[in-house]
Amino acid sequence: MIDLARTITEILKNVLPEGTVALHEPKFSGNEWTYVKECLDTGWVSSVGKFVDRFEAQLAEYTGAKHAIATVNGTAALHVCLRLAGVERDDEVLIPTLTFVATANAVSYCGAVPHFVDSSEITLGVDPDKLKAYLEDTVEIRDGTCFNRATGRRIRALVVMHTFGHPADLDPLLEICRRFGITLVEDAAESLGSFYKGRHTGTLGKLSALSFNGNKIVTTGGGGAILTNDAELARLAKHLTTTAKIPHRWSFTHDKIGYNYRLPNINAALGCAQLEALPGFVERKRGLAEKYKAAFAGLGGIRFFAEPSFARSNYWLNALILEPGNERFRDGLLDATNEAGIMTRPAWTLMHRLEMYEACPKMSDLGIAESIERRLINIPSSASLVDSFSPFTGHTG
Amino acid sequence: MIDLARTITEILKNVLPEGTVALHEPKFSGNEWTYVKECLDTGWVSSVGKFVDRFEAQLAEYTGAKHAIATVNGTAALHVCLRLAGVERDDEVLIPTLTFVATANAVSYCGAVPHFVDSSEITLGVDPDKLKAYLEDTVEIRDGTCFNRATGRRIRALVVMHTFGHPADLDPLLEICRRFGITLVEDAAESLGSFYKGRHTGTLGKLSALSFNGNKIVTTGGGGAILTNDAELARLAKHLTTTAKIPHRWSFTHDKIGYNYRLPNINAALGCAQLEALPGFVERKRGLAEKYKAAFAGLGGIRFFAEPSFARSNYWLNALILEPGNERFRDGLLDATNEAGIMTRPAWTLMHRLEMYEACPKMSDLGIAESIERRLINIPSSASLVDSFSPFTGHTG
Repeated sequence: MIDLARTITEILKNVLPEGTVALHEPKFSGNEWTYVKECLDTGWVSSVGKFVDRFEAQLAEYTGAKHAIATVNGTAALHVCLRLAGVERDDEVLIPTLTFVATANAVSYCGAVPHFVDSSEITLGVDPDKLKAYLEDTVEIRDGTCFNRATGRRIRALVVMHTFGHPADLDPLLEICRRFGITLVEDAAESLGSFYKGRHTGTLGKLSALSFNGNKIVTTGGGGAILTNDAELARLAKHLTTTAKIPHRWSFTHDKIGYNYRLPNINAALGCAQLEALPGFVERKRGLAEKYKAAFAGLGGIRFFAEPSFARSNYWLNALILEPGNERFRDGLLDATNEAGIMTRPAWTLMHRLEMYEACPKMSDLGIAESIERRLINIPSSASLVDSFSPFTGHTG
Repeated sequence: MIDLARTITEILKNVLPEGTVALHEPKFSGNEWTYVKECLDTGWVSSVGKFVDRFEAQLAEYTGAKHAIATVNGTAALHVCLRLAGVERDDEVLIPTLTFVATANAVSYCGAVPHFVDSSEITLGVDPDKLKAYLEDTVEIRDGTCFNRATGRRIRALVVMHTFGHPADLDPLLEICRRFGITLVEDAAESLGSFYKGRHTGTLGKLSALSFNGNKIVTTGGGGAILTNDAELARLAKHLTTTAKIPHRWSFTHDKIGYNYRLPNINAALGCAQLEALPGFVERKRGLAEKYKAAFAGLGGIRFFAEPSFARSNYWLNALILEPGNERFRDGLLDATNEAGIMTRPAWTLMHRLEMYEACPKMSDLGIAESIERRLINIPSSASLVDSFSPFTGHTG
């Protein structure tokens, strides 16, 4: 154990710059200050100002989504995606147990119940084959609507999360959703800059959520966005995220229970500058992933997680996975690397193990997620960790 | 009608600077730039950085609250206040029908039901006498808990909103809450800088919410805060607003359904600079109110709304109230002033009239709120509309 931890720490030291290395840090070297200063100079920091519109247009252009609606953070975006997917109180929503807690919380905010499913070791996202077999055993369709036979609750949506930026296998998941009358929502919080078979993640589901938290590939301080190709859903998303106020010169009337989920203009200003830098960030991060891949190629007992064959990933958060049987080395590895100033972390505690979600419905076998949880560690991934564009990444998504 | 509208417009023109005058605009003339630039230079724009702690300390010091917890906006703050007040699914929460929609929405986010009560023409806030009489007729106490006899639902909290910055009459409202086993929560979104009998609004209720939206007396782009004097509630408020993550060097475990309600560091940086300027803003706004008061003193048919006798208000949003019988002049007055470039607006559409809340429980007589709604207009109120400190406002709260 000591040897493996020491060897891995040495490899990381060779790839990374000297000194303390964070897991993920933002990089501001473009127009960030110019745009933010413009907000302060004009006084337009909040709900007035041009940067929100511009940020939304840039997001739509980059991702290819027809509509992008900026929100105050990714959790808020996912909450509104679920409401617009028709999720209501006491519905169930299928989500991976291997995800950040925001995925499950957004379901709870709707008064609905998360229903946990297993992941694939190839994608780290929801496993389509296992999901299909499970639904065949578990649900019934009545009038085109999917019901959990055990709980009697309606299953309204499936949330697919693109773990650490790696796209889940969306085509078979979309097929399952069509067959079972379930709406596909993408939690693309981690996958801005990641493509599935040439299409940007977040553009295949009915609705998708992005995040621009401080640890993401681009940041607005805190922020998120909803993507959709449906004009009416886009209109409703904007309406719900801005307190559902009916436009009027002076009157304050609201026609729905809406949210104060608007992204402030000053945060959008930061986002506009960050999006200008995004293609460069993706190339740098892919370059770093190539360096890691090469550095760990010869080592037994552990492997560097590489994008699935159908994907071009942003490699948001790089991951090492211990081979089965080496689970016992995980905590020693976390200790050794963090003590060496190289920040690492394990996967999230699985959702079905958190006390507030342990009574929720779930697959009886969540073995792959459980195995990944015991074996995975994330390693430093900031775009600033490589000096320039990598020669490995000339092709496009 | 034409004459009254014309006269009022002329008076407003005399008080206000030439050109288009907004209802409320922020003012950035202190350290806003310096602090925001520091965030960008250090890369600490999001969940890392010193400005959130500093902003919270400044808020506690200014208001006299023992604890302040910064949040992403005022609605988020109120939502968490209600959860910490014990509001659960299918409870009822008493709120004024005369308020901004966020008050009612925060109740809905808990899965609870708003229950609308009337306001006082003296304070524009909840009328204690009317509330007391209503509760005597409407509720029963079982084991110290208040229940609505008509609906059978538990009444858990009363939210008092300090309308346009003017403090509600908190002492008798606190007494009512004690008697009926209801928790008092203050919606102090509009009243930063306003004092009730020498104590800052938001420090008398069990929990209180502040807002720093772009139209407020100080702004963080978007932002809010929770105030409380209870150390355990403060700890829980910080925990719930930061995804209820259990502190650990690397592990991601959460023990409650929490929220991504943290204020980003870059927004807190703006807030720190704005709070430095707050005492000056309050004095300017009180100076503007004095100018309005003097200008409208001789005019019949309408009066300038002045702070209640027990209050020292921030005069966040100044208001004119037509005398009863003059309701028919309101829309003409809104037209005339807005057409003259002087932004004005009526009170919010009352909550019990909004379609999503019209079936909620309410006092059968909401006559004062209804009358105020028909007669009130808000007039420009930015701190920048007076040049310097007013001689009228030398005393302190």
